[in-house]
Amino acid sequence: MDPTDPQAACFEAGVKFGSLYHQFAGTPVAPDSTASLEQAMAEAIENQPFCESVTVTIDEGRVREAIDHDEGYTELTGALMDVEMHIDYEGVLVHTEMRMVDGYPRMRVVSVEP
Amino acid sequence: MDPTDPQAACFEAGVKFGSLYHQFAGTPVAPDSTASLEQAMAEAIENQPFCESVTVTIDEGRVREAIDHDEGYTELTGALMDVEMHIDYEGVLVHTEMRMVDGYPRMRVVSVEP
Amino acid sequence: MDPTDPQAACFEAGVKFGSLYHQFAGTPVAPDSTASLEQAMAEAIENQPFCESVTVTIDEGRVREAIDHDEGYTELTGALMDVEMHIDYEGVLVHTEMRMVDGYPRMRVVSVEP
Amino acid sequence: MDPTDPQAACFEAGVKFGSLYHQFAGTPVAPDSTASLEQAMAEAIENQPFCESVTVTIDEGRVREAIDHDEGYTELTGALMDVEMHIDYEGVLVHTEMRMVDGYPRMRVVSVEP
Repeated sequence: MDPTDPQAACFEAGVKFGSLYHQFAGTPVAPDSTASLEQAMAEAIENQPFCESVTVTIDEGRVREAIDHDEGYTELTGALMDVEMHIDYEGVLVHTEMRMVDGYPRMRVVSVEP
Repeated sequence: MDPTDPQAACFEAGVKFGSLYHQFAGTPVAPDSTASLEQAMAEAIENQPFCESVTVTIDEGRVREAIDHDEGYTELTGALMDVEMHIDYEGVLVHTEMRMVDGYPRMRVVSVEP
Repeated sequence: MDPTDPQAACFEAGVKFGSLYHQFAGTPVAPDSTASLEQAMAEAIENQPFCESVTVTIDEGRVREAIDHDEGYTELTGALMDVEMHIDYEGVLVHTEMRMVDGYPRMRVVSVEP
Repeated sequence: MDPTDPQAACFEAGVKFGSLYHQFAGTPVAPDSTASLEQAMAEAIENQPFCESVTVTIDEGRVREAIDHDEGYTELTGALMDVEMHIDYEGVLVHTEMRMVDGYPRMRVVSVEP
């Protein structure tokens, strides 16, 4: 069966999450470079079609814990950030997020409206 | 509203597409390295949850056209490949593909069953 | 033979260039998101060892030309940016850059001092 | 001062290492997909100029240890692989490697000849 608009909207939401994750995972990050990386990630993905807003929060405390003290930086992983995204596809609003659950980063659809 | 299983299945399908694209776009590729890259891309993404099968076809003719003759290689983009993917999420089967449409690579949901 | 300090410094400079290029190539970019991406790229790579400074200039005019008018964005490639980098390895200063030469982005060592 | 040929050769070697690392770090990998990923990484980077040979060895034992048993896969990092590379730039041969040293992956120039 052809996808419904809400199904296509959820597909688009997934594309944005996979894009954000695999474009930026591995980026060198330190406590004083989290702000520029958060902004660049959000603005980059907001360029993609149907993407209303993206909020990336890289946790400075988790970055500090992940850092090898000799090196002074670490590489971005899902465990270091929380992400929220809002998609608007043909009037269907999809809210998605990535958060740590039981020690692992989980991407999920929070709500689909209407 | 919480997502239905078919909506969550489409989200998962989108995550795989965004992952495949942004993990591997930019990889140096030449006509005689398309086969190993196709296989590695498919096997990498098939590791992800709910992902039944992935088929990547990098078009050697398009790779040849994209190559600068001095260099002998180009970088992988969506314009050089076709991708098919099958997702099985809680019994919902989603078939997705990326193909060139009007000169641009388009990712879309082909069908959702049942 | 073991590398000399200037040779090791040039190796480190190359690592930073390869990292910057392959981490960020493929990022969705539009004229109004070039500034945040430039800053994030520079600050990310400056985290790496021996990296004194990085300057990334994404050319808005070239971004506009690369954009498909239907989509409103393109993906970052070497053709859209100029990069300068200064490495300090054990007192050896290496200056490197990436610029368009004859239509292709070229990475090169500008100078090694002393 | 302009770089010497051995310095330029070391720069090229570094570019290949940074490229390999940041192109492929983050790729989903499991014990039965290490072989295809090793081959694709080697063949991709061998496409780049002056790159004679690349050998990538992803350690299945380290992949198993890194895997979350619920997921069945992990993401490629420097800690999971050893890499050897040989560069030939204008007759200068550079041998480089990445290996675990004191718990961290270290990239280094092994030798420069002549």
